[in-house]
Amino acid sequence: MTPSDIIFANRLADAAGDAIRPFFRSDFAHEAKGDASPVTEADRAAEAAIRAIIDTEFPNDAIIGEEFGEKSGSSGRTWVLDPIDGTVSFMAGRPTFGTLIALLQDGWPVLGVIDQCISGERWVGVSGKGTTLNGLPVKTRICGELKDATLASTGPQYFDNHSAEHFMALAGKTSHKHMMWGGDCYNYALLASGHIDIVVESGLKLHDIAALVPIVEGAGGMMCDWKGEPLHAASQGDVIALGDPARLDDVLEALACGH
Amino acid sequence: MTPSDIIFANRLADAAGDAIRPFFRSDFAHEAKGDASPVTEADRAAEAAIRAIIDTEFPNDAIIGEEFGEKSGSSGRTWVLDPIDGTVSFMAGRPTFGTLIALLQDGWPVLGVIDQCISGERWVGVSGKGTTLNGLPVKTRICGELKDATLASTGPQYFDNHSAEHFMALAGKTSHKHMMWGGDCYNYALLASGHIDIVVESGLKLHDIAALVPIVEGAGGMMCDWKGEPLHAASQGDVIALGDPARLDDVLEALACGH
Repeated sequence: MTPSDIIFANRLADAAGDAIRPFFRSDFAHEAKGDASPVTEADRAAEAAIRAIIDTEFPNDAIIGEEFGEKSGSSGRTWVLDPIDGTVSFMAGRPTFGTLIALLQDGWPVLGVIDQCISGERWVGVSGKGTTLNGLPVKTRICGELKDATLASTGPQYFDNHSAEHFMALAGKTSHKHMMWGGDCYNYALLASGHIDIVVESGLKLHDIAALVPIVEGAGGMMCDWKGEPLHAASQGDVIALGDPARLDDVLEALACGH
Repeated sequence: MTPSDIIFANRLADAAGDAIRPFFRSDFAHEAKGDASPVTEADRAAEAAIRAIIDTEFPNDAIIGEEFGEKSGSSGRTWVLDPIDGTVSFMAGRPTFGTLIALLQDGWPVLGVIDQCISGERWVGVSGKGTTLNGLPVKTRICGELKDATLASTGPQYFDNHSAEHFMALAGKTSHKHMMWGGDCYNYALLASGHIDIVVESGLKLHDIAALVPIVEGAGGMMCDWKGEPLHAASQGDVIALGDPARLDDVLEALACGH
């Protein structure tokens, strides 16, 4: 990856934002996908805009996109795209959805972007180079004790009964009055910026996760699955993001209690 | 209430925003209140700024504020203030908290403001005069069937076991894939603007509710308690906001099922 890749990723995010903004709080077509989750014409327009640029300028790069699937490549590079993470929030007019763009080198995310095109906030994480919000460095914060931690998760409906028990066991050991629901990718961005300590979710897919890893880890945090293992295809979307990696054992121990 | 009262309420919101913005995503003192919910110096600075203006210009108006309590008056007018509704969101850097300002005339809210001072969005509702977002009229939307409704609520932890059962009975009859958590007062603002159909919460206090009523009802919606009665002191904070009042019977029937 080169500096020009970072510039290129920013251009992809610009294109997605330009495609999304006209639909925000406006009329847009939407429908239910196979898993009954919603998709709008804004999701599709944004992913199409990104793919068109990649196809033209890096035709040998592979692409995995939430809405238009996989395109194979020969460069060893893969772009992983979620044009609107938090489509439900987008549809309800909340400015906390995000466009996720990740560049995988030999299968591992080395560059990630979370772009909020309404507030004009863009987090960019680059392997080994730190994370920025609109160009300024951001850092996760220290979390001395689990009982003081702010925990966030998008919604209880995304846990199955089994994972919900584990999650609630963890929630009971964090700062109960600071527990926060909703948020989608925006929670991970706020964790990278040092305002949230822990995000725990279940059922995430590659396009939900890939961009988050360089952003969280470049800001000093860590991401892993519910057993503390690095995220990989077998993680089944059970994700932990920690602002302070020193709390990992506490979080794993609390999560393991729920059964 | 006169047009100058609307201008005055806007000045109060301006003052609150000026007090809050310097603390957003910055360092601020915070502590737990008696009910363990957090309060920050931004909450206190914003309420102090509002109260100072009212005390000077309308010394005979009563004030009920979340942070500094009650001041009696003799004018028949009461200002009800929640300087930061969604303090947890504010502390986590989410731009979806709000300053709530209500003017009660003989005990009934006739003017309400929801101000989001980071995004620069201000909803103002005036009895008999409609609701505006940054000066432009907004309307709630039609909701033909409960199964298509987008339902929002701030967090399951705000329900007790009994109310949670009722809430989940309702949630099961709305559009499950569109259910949205988090949001605080911002959910009611988005309902007034026609992006959310139903908000149902429990345990709200007068300062959480008063400003919402003129905003939701001025936009064509309605607010009531979980029995369909107008909100009053005995409602115990069980609140329904509906974008389309035609769905009231469906919502009450669904809520009543959960036991």
